[in-house]
Amino acid sequence: MPSAMESDRLRIVLVSTRNPLNIGAAARAMANFGFQRLRLVHPFDTAFREARSAVGASALLATAEEFKTVADAVADCSLIVGATAIGHRQLQHPLQSLKDGAPLILQALSAPASTPNRVAILFGSEKFGLSNEDLCHCHWLMHIPTSEAQPSMNLGQAVAVCLYELARETASAIPSTAPADAPAVEVERVTATLLETLHASEYLSAESPGSKPDSIRRMVRRMHLSSEDASTWLGILRQILWKLRTKN
Amino acid sequence: MPSAMESDRLRIVLVSTRNPLNIGAAARAMANFGFQRLRLVHPFDTAFREARSAVGASALLATAEEFKTVADAVADCSLIVGATAIGHRQLQHPLQSLKDGAPLILQALSAPASTPNRVAILFGSEKFGLSNEDLCHCHWLMHIPTSEAQPSMNLGQAVAVCLYELARETASAIPSTAPADAPAVEVERVTATLLETLHASEYLSAESPGSKPDSIRRMVRRMHLSSEDASTWLGILRQILWKLRTKN
Repeated sequence: MPSAMESDRLRIVLVSTRNPLNIGAAARAMANFGFQRLRLVHPFDTAFREARSAVGASALLATAEEFKTVADAVADCSLIVGATAIGHRQLQHPLQSLKDGAPLILQALSAPASTPNRVAILFGSEKFGLSNEDLCHCHWLMHIPTSEAQPSMNLGQAVAVCLYELARETASAIPSTAPADAPAVEVERVTATLLETLHASEYLSAESPGSKPDSIRRMVRRMHLSSEDASTWLGILRQILWKLRTKN
Repeated sequence: MPSAMESDRLRIVLVSTRNPLNIGAAARAMANFGFQRLRLVHPFDTAFREARSAVGASALLATAEEFKTVADAVADCSLIVGATAIGHRQLQHPLQSLKDGAPLILQALSAPASTPNRVAILFGSEKFGLSNEDLCHCHWLMHIPTSEAQPSMNLGQAVAVCLYELARETASAIPSTAPADAPAVEVERVTATLLETLHASEYLSAESPGSKPDSIRRMVRRMHLSSEDASTWLGILRQILWKLRTKN
């Protein structure tokens, strides 16, 4: 089992979940493996309400939080991992098997208490998985190795397997000494200001194909900014923006 | 994934299952991890029929076999393992964690073809688990380590976690896709162009203390740029520089 501190730092984020049974199953697996913090991003229709009012619904569901966007749901997290069955999409993110990714997650969770190392694992909808837009918020993707003939797992089972692997590895986690990544809200602020600068400098035009800002967004995630570096970049970009604008 | 021979030798035996959704979930997890042989011992009421006729029910369910007794269901197996959440019953069997038990199961499955090493893993009913009578057929019991506060797992999730662990040991590692850092000459080119931009935008002044450019230089190193990202940054910075200068 993870320590109380570690489990308190992990958020399981279910994005656009359709089936209330799957929300309940995810909550049960979290309770089984000692995790508490469940977040839902625009669950489908009444799925969340139904799951919450189901007979035997857990205390964990009662304290689950609901968000309108993925950005809001991961704002306080400094490592964001997307669970994926791969396959239909060409991946533009680093990919780890669950076995290799779990130690990285545990390392982040067990960082010194002074660094705000909260981690989110995102699970997409039953039918479509995570969208390209959802994936833009992720630092890397994690994959449960499955059969080629039937790669796609049931959502509740995928959550259970991921949390089992995290609980399985807990004993051997090594604390990290590298500076922690900044919370997503700060990284997003840098991204937004960079995009603004790219438009102001006409590196991006208003008619830029939609994929361009997404690829900038992914590039900023690959920089693994610390809070200090994020704040330096923000200062740099704001100065450039101001200069570009006052020249007009 | 297990080899075809290994997976063909494993039987997942669901005893007295009540919920057709759990039968379907067990079948799906088997397909995910490359196992085929599902057996059911007196499934409750119409659970098996319902699971079989469910929309999207797998080929695996169509070939699932039904037995009246546990003895019949495991008759052709030489190793029989019972899955248990322990707890309420005093165990009179050797107990292994899933992590330690899986290698023993794989060892049996990979025995030379001349020895009939078929293995059964038994899962009990959702409400009561395996009965003492069921347990009598088992050589040893296997336990998924769970939280004391909520030890009992959902049946479909327990099957998925067990099969994941069996497949985990034989899964081929996904080659790392993280891009390599760019050669130093490219990183330095980005640094020099960034410094030029910082002067042009007056973020750095001519009289900036010498430590400021050094700290920018270190920050660029911390970004661990790939060649591709270095070239994107170079394009961005050159466009900004050009824009800053033509405005003068």
